[in-house]
Amino acid sequence: MDVDKEYFSNINHRERAIFEGAISMGALFHQFIGTPVNKKTVNNLEIAIKESLELQPAIEKVKISIDLDKLDDAMTDFQYTSLTGDMLDVKIFSKVVDVLAIVRMKFIENINYPLMFIEDIIEEDTRKEDTMK
Amino acid sequence: MDVDKEYFSNINHRERAIFEGAISMGALFHQFIGTPVNKKTVNNLEIAIKESLELQPAIEKVKISIDLDKLDDAMTDFQYTSLTGDMLDVKIFSKVVDVLAIVRMKFIENINYPLMFIEDIIEEDTRKEDTMK
Amino acid sequence: MDVDKEYFSNINHRERAIFEGAISMGALFHQFIGTPVNKKTVNNLEIAIKESLELQPAIEKVKISIDLDKLDDAMTDFQYTSLTGDMLDVKIFSKVVDVLAIVRMKFIENINYPLMFIEDIIEEDTRKEDTMK
Amino acid sequence: MDVDKEYFSNINHRERAIFEGAISMGALFHQFIGTPVNKKTVNNLEIAIKESLELQPAIEKVKISIDLDKLDDAMTDFQYTSLTGDMLDVKIFSKVVDVLAIVRMKFIENINYPLMFIEDIIEEDTRKEDTMK
Repeated sequence: MDVDKEYFSNINHRERAIFEGAISMGALFHQFIGTPVNKKTVNNLEIAIKESLELQPAIEKVKISIDLDKLDDAMTDFQYTSLTGDMLDVKIFSKVVDVLAIVRMKFIENINYPLMFIEDIIEEDTRKEDTMK
Repeated sequence: MDVDKEYFSNINHRERAIFEGAISMGALFHQFIGTPVNKKTVNNLEIAIKESLELQPAIEKVKISIDLDKLDDAMTDFQYTSLTGDMLDVKIFSKVVDVLAIVRMKFIENINYPLMFIEDIIEEDTRKEDTMK
Repeated sequence: MDVDKEYFSNINHRERAIFEGAISMGALFHQFIGTPVNKKTVNNLEIAIKESLELQPAIEKVKISIDLDKLDDAMTDFQYTSLTGDMLDVKIFSKVVDVLAIVRMKFIENINYPLMFIEDIIEEDTRKEDTMK
Repeated sequence: MDVDKEYFSNINHRERAIFEGAISMGALFHQFIGTPVNKKTVNNLEIAIKESLELQPAIEKVKISIDLDKLDDAMTDFQYTSLTGDMLDVKIFSKVVDVLAIVRMKFIENINYPLMFIEDIIEEDTRKEDTMK
């Protein structure tokens, strides 16, 4: 079955890059929030999150950074805490043919919210290249 | 702060409707997969999933249906099972100004995958309406 | 297969009541933390959590209360927040034959931790009853 | 605050070792089920799961093994799948003072269930040692 033709012919490459990046960002938040974490385990947790999300359709690269100061602020008497949204800064690079969408999640203090938005969209202008030939 | 102006002026309404619907679909899958469920609890689980997702930005409505036959097939000796992706059929209605995106998740047997795609996008053609006045 | 005989003959009823209650408390925390919630959805979320956990082995009853003041404190500009451990007060009643264990989770401020502990264990003293006959 | 004295004086070391091990097993299942995984990412996922659970109270060691054949069986057209309970074989070593409880989760085919049970409990008989002096 040609999944692209069957299910994605109603949106363009730019829209699909946005779509796939957004799915993975929602997935990341709701899969990993609540995971026990401290400074010793934060690196390997970041690697596992990154690698698991990079398996999803169109996801080229995931950059994830867990804020060590906020990790410290949330520290319990048991020397670890649960991962929360305000600790996360994530960029997901989603590429569909000639369009790269960079989806970002970042905690915005004055709305008290881990906002997900499109940080950048880069489109290779293939028409221009063609014209210049 | 004007979140829309600050963070979403680089995408149009159609793209943002797709973006927000996709986030919520990724969220749904990764938040609720694994939840203990059987035929007696399936209704209230559907309600809780629906209501929680409808809180997210731009989400107007969520229709969720858990397949009772697949629930039966997965039944354990303890008379319940864990919610899995193949049991779910979901439509998320995401509306941004004049664009409604219907994001669907449906298990596609021949790719063995709970595929997320855009089932439909409905745009009110406001220009046409203006012209006709 | 006789699961009890095969897998649980190395612990007594009291120990198994503790065991099953503890599993369900760990399950509850890590399944539902991160769920979008506000005051309008909190009741149905509590019902879904309660019903899903009551399906697990030995779990007779789950009492769950989400702290509305803490929900308020965590409110975002989008009029909902993510469920966190400090909002939860839970009692899980786990019964194995003649022993009822009440497992509690409660946020303890001065250790900044959602502590899980045994609130009470009630054993029907069947030997005494036999003796008194 | 002396958490042990305040909250755990109603159970003995053996019971608490069982309690803490069971919490972590419930946590593991419900935190990580649903994570995208394939053969390339399975090792780092195992490490992240192991490290995060080893942070919890009393947990000395976690041994986790994801079944590669079952991973293969569940493979989708997108070259990954979601982690499910039947793929997991886990041992959690929970130690409280002189008692080590080994909590196991293992998928039991003929009940179609990822059963959690106590594989072994090892108690150092400190009284005997004292007597022998």
